Amino acid sequence: MKFFDGNDTRIFALGGLGEVGKNMYCIAHENELIVVDTGVSFAEEELLGIDYVLPDYTFLKKNQQKIKALIITHGHEDHIGGIPFLLQEINIPIIYAPKQATSLINKKLSERNINYKNVTCYNEDTKIKFKHFEVTFFRTTHSIPDSHGIVFNTPNGTVVMTGDFKFDWTPIGPVADIHKMAAIGNKGVKLLLSDSTNALVEGVSMSESRVDEALGEIIERHNGRIIIATFASNVYRLKHIVETCQKNNRKIAVFGRSMENQLENAIECGYIKNDKVIIESNEAKQIPNNKLVILCTGSQGEPLAALSRIADGSHNQVKLMPNDLVVFSSSPIPGNALSISRTINKLYLRGVEVYTNNMLSEVHTSGHAPLEELKLMLRLMKPKYFMPYHGEFRMLKKHADIAVECGIPRKNIFLLENGDILSIDKSEARKVGSLPIADIYVDGSRVGNVGGIVIRDRKIMSNDGILVIIANIDVNKKELLAKPTITTRGFVLVNENEELLNKIQGIAYDILKRKIKEDNINYQDLKNEIILELTPFIFAKTGRRPIILPVIMDIKR
Amino acid sequence: MKFFDGNDTRIFALGGLGEVGKNMYCIAHENELIVVDTGVSFAEEELLGIDYVLPDYTFLKKNQQKIKALIITHGHEDHIGGIPFLLQEINIPIIYAPKQATSLINKKLSERNINYKNVTCYNEDTKIKFKHFEVTFFRTTHSIPDSHGIVFNTPNGTVVMTGDFKFDWTPIGPVADIHKMAAIGNKGVKLLLSDSTNALVEGVSMSESRVDEALGEIIERHNGRIIIATFASNVYRLKHIVETCQKNNRKIAVFGRSMENQLENAIECGYIKNDKVIIESNEAKQIPNNKLVILCTGSQGEPLAALSRIADGSHNQVKLMPNDLVVFSSSPIPGNALSISRTINKLYLRGVEVYTNNMLSEVHTSGHAPLEELKLMLRLMKPKYFMPYHGEFRMLKKHADIAVECGIPRKNIFLLENGDILSIDKSEARKVGSLPIADIYVDGSRVGNVGGIVIRDRKIMSNDGILVIIANIDVNKKELLAKPTITTRGFVLVNENEELLNKIQGIAYDILKRKIKEDNINYQDLKNEIILELTPFIFAKTGRRPIILPVIMDIKR
Repeated sequence: MKFFDGNDTRIFALGGLGEVGKNMYCIAHENELIVVDTGVSFAEEELLGIDYVLPDYTFLKKNQQKIKALIITHGHEDHIGGIPFLLQEINIPIIYAPKQATSLINKKLSERNINYKNVTCYNEDTKIKFKHFEVTFFRTTHSIPDSHGIVFNTPNGTVVMTGDFKFDWTPIGPVADIHKMAAIGNKGVKLLLSDSTNALVEGVSMSESRVDEALGEIIERHNGRIIIATFASNVYRLKHIVETCQKNNRKIAVFGRSMENQLENAIECGYIKNDKVIIESNEAKQIPNNKLVILCTGSQGEPLAALSRIADGSHNQVKLMPNDLVVFSSSPIPGNALSISRTINKLYLRGVEVYTNNMLSEVHTSGHAPLEELKLMLRLMKPKYFMPYHGEFRMLKKHADIAVECGIPRKNIFLLENGDILSIDKSEARKVGSLPIADIYVDGSRVGNVGGIVIRDRKIMSNDGILVIIANIDVNKKELLAKPTITTRGFVLVNENEELLNKIQGIAYDILKRKIKEDNINYQDLKNEIILELTPFIFAKTGRRPIILPVIMDIKR
Repeated sequence: MKFFDGNDTRIFALGGLGEVGKNMYCIAHENELIVVDTGVSFAEEELLGIDYVLPDYTFLKKNQQKIKALIITHGHEDHIGGIPFLLQEINIPIIYAPKQATSLINKKLSERNINYKNVTCYNEDTKIKFKHFEVTFFRTTHSIPDSHGIVFNTPNGTVVMTGDFKFDWTPIGPVADIHKMAAIGNKGVKLLLSDSTNALVEGVSMSESRVDEALGEIIERHNGRIIIATFASNVYRLKHIVETCQKNNRKIAVFGRSMENQLENAIECGYIKNDKVIIESNEAKQIPNNKLVILCTGSQGEPLAALSRIADGSHNQVKLMPNDLVVFSSSPIPGNALSISRTINKLYLRGVEVYTNNMLSEVHTSGHAPLEELKLMLRLMKPKYFMPYHGEFRMLKKHADIAVECGIPRKNIFLLENGDILSIDKSEARKVGSLPIADIYVDGSRVGNVGGIVIRDRKIMSNDGILVIIANIDVNKKELLAKPTITTRGFVLVNENEELLNKIQGIAYDILKRKIKEDNINYQDLKNEIILELTPFIFAKTGRRPIILPVIMDIKR
């Protein structure tokens, strides 16, 4: 497929379709390709040992010289988290980002010692001209400041990406620019891509003002220490907590690195002004309980986050007391329900009171538009073609149904997957093919092909352990230098199972002796033979299926 | 106060503030006055014998020559019901009304034999120019087709009246013109008057599409006769019922004059096309039950409406059967709760199933914007000054609070009463005085000063009845021609209380004999004397306080 040759404009996702996370969208015309957002996904619990998942950059690598810019809609990790990885692999001439995101990206890059100077701050009035595209922005409301929708004027009509948004008529920051949106819609939108995250939620979203009221009341009334866990990036919520604490003569001690970073960033950017309320964490002990708020990470029950350690009793600065009140000003990200309830149970065990958004819905509101607000966006933009994005398939599907209700013909709606290419020309839009793409796993700081097998192995190991069989051979002499060494982890207790392990060693030894005499020894065959023979034996003796890992070392003497 | 002399523009309500009903708003500049809407209120139950309440036209009568036009926002009775009465008293050069309202007004006038030819149909693109005003419109959604908001370009800035509205992104008719509203707001609105009816309702309104789905399911599933009572003016709902019946092979028989009229009108105006589904009411008996829908008036439990008579068993064409299903596709208008529950009880007594919007909220949706939609209107219009209208005070008050939340300073919000005059000039808006106004009661076809006393009397009569004492006298001869005649209604049973009535006659006779000899007989004194003496006597004997009505007739022989 000649990707960049036609007169059509092409839109595709490298991440963000069929998932909430690792958003990365591309729009291309002739020799110009613009990338929108570069996110990471936080791995679900079944992706053991994986920290993040990244979009597949293969296509971008191949077409590097055509990339004109990366445009960022807002500063959430699922939109900016992939930037350090992307920049290490691909030359991006310029990154446009709104104010808060710019600051967060620069911090992220300097933390990783990546020397990149081309992060350029845009605002809602910025106009960026490329050869084939003119890009403008509109202000939206989201759970982070400076969230924007993007308008691409292309040779084949206007393409609008909403970015993450909701409507909130009484927000803490500036209100969404509904007038600009109406004007864009009035001029004519060829294709709309709109945030589907909350398409399955009825009605409208609760205003951030309501959350502030509820938190304000809690801070005012509770006569003891208050521990608030919230999303560190929700700067308006942090701002409100800071202001309410100032009003109520409380000091704030901050625990958790991402919370410290975001607060610092919010103060630098000018979102939060009253920074004198915030004290050093080691000063917290000197403040009376009813004059203190602890603001911390861990609203998702992350095992190493401040709140989890506090709940465990393993936090060395904060020990729980009976009159403490813990507020989860957050909602569970899917997949985290278990770890959150674990944390809540521990908190209850220590006798403190806990508020979550299940018990008191006003302590949190989502940043994404529910059904009625999605309809409003569709009505404002009144696009000819529609492509729901940013969501799992059931969300995209529901969003498509909503669009039909709002008068968009079903045939003009595209339910696509990552890699699918949508082409628009002067007259119509259609799917013209798919790029092959895969998820890229990031394991600690190593990026690469960790792949599905690794994940499966880790899953097995987490249940049944591993058995490593190391054999030193001399291939030339077709000699086995010693009995194979057996090492295990997480399989059986070595001390209590010497007999079993000896038998396993014996079986492996027999196989090796037999095989080594053959011509053209194939290591892989040898390994397979060991695995095939040991697996049923071990299962019969122990009921377990550990990973069996034969290691053949050719020692040339 | 010189009303029309200044350079300011004046806005006031003759009805509609502090009440839901009899809407009538005026906007005036120099020698031009434009009236918006001319409604009636349906009397509350305590206004005995009163059919309607009208706005006070006194001011308009005095300033008749200044009235340039009456503009109607939509065809509901609380916006057009007063037109026949207004036209009988005041010369209105022209009435502008949207399509459906035009047709309804013309019908109303011809029914009352009022020969008025100046009802002019406008649509959303119409522009009307006066000397000081330019008037344009924007399409809104309401529970009747063709509802409009009005934009007045005045020498002192733009004044917007929303009319009755809600937002519904999946309506049955055309969607509200949010783009035009945004454009109006963008150009700058000096003063916004916005519908406050549902300011006390949280969230957003249910879509009419949902109601249609719910009714559609009921019509599809119920295997017997279905009786639907709904607001006759909700033409889109009627349209849907007609279409669903056609799809399900059901015929519709219509009972109740206003329902017949509105359906006829909707067919004439082209809103309803499949009129072959509708049969003559006397044909209903020949249709199998599971092929019939009865569409009728009486959703408010009005005693003489079709549904009430059906429930009573006194309807001569429709007798209830056990497998009937009655649907109230409506909500109770305040004050009607009692009569509605009376009707529902009767229906249950007759063993039929009943659905109301209490049991199944999807069978009805309101036509007025709840809280979140009011915020959207405020954000779209972003007016400098705000005056909540169309609502009881608690609704206006709440709407004012909402406006503050949406960033309008409290000092720029005017909570006014009927008659209060708001003046806007180049720089600011302020209240500059009040017109004295009263409610006008309409008792059957008689209009006029029925007044508070009459209502009070009716209330007394409804409890204790009336006692009429008729005395024929000859004033010249100072002679009583006979013993006074005593007539009662609703007081005591005449047959069983002859003695009491004779004593009353005797007392009255004594007073008359004594008084008639005096010089300068004052009839009123004579009457008062009778009332004053009889009241305690009757109360002592019966425990009642009937209206005592002495009638003195001067018979000149």
